[in-house]
Amino acid sequence: MFKAKVIIKRRPSILDPQGKAVEKGAQHLGLTNIRNTRIGKYIEFDILSDNRQEAEKEVNDYCKKLLANPIMEDYEFTLEEVK
Amino acid sequence: MFKAKVIIKRRPSILDPQGKAVEKGAQHLGLTNIRNTRIGKYIEFDILSDNRQEAEKEVNDYCKKLLANPIMEDYEFTLEEVK
Repeated sequence: MFKAKVIIKRRPSILDPQGKAVEKGAQHLGLTNIRNTRIGKYIEFDILSDNRQEAEKEVNDYCKKLLANPIMEDYEFTLEEVK
Repeated sequence: MFKAKVIIKRRPSILDPQGKAVEKGAQHLGLTNIRNTRIGKYIEFDILSDNRQEAEKEVNDYCKKLLANPIMEDYEFTLEEVK
């Protein structure tokens, strides 16, 4: 089995209004040193396979077809074998 | 300046209906080896400070007051100095 950890970020050229909004809240709370907040997703799951290549393919398919929006987002992942 | 990278996850005891729903979609697409999908947040931002201790305090405050829900979520972060 493998444990997959995926990070999905908006492309740098794409605005992040949610990040902007949260950061405005931070300024109001006196956290004045924070800049460029960008909010993405972190996704964990298991893959019932002992073949790393097969597991990688499944993670890529999962990301491309369901987890990430290929127009606006990039993803990266790590695969950790679990015994 | 520091670059902060924060991961926010639901506590293990808390159900993740969004993860369950996406995983059901995966099964329908033939990705049948995927289990226990849990969806969290990944947040990046800069901190205009050259003092690591001060920067850490600001990240903790930001997480506790705005980014994470302390009742349902745990967070972890790394701070990387940027010259």
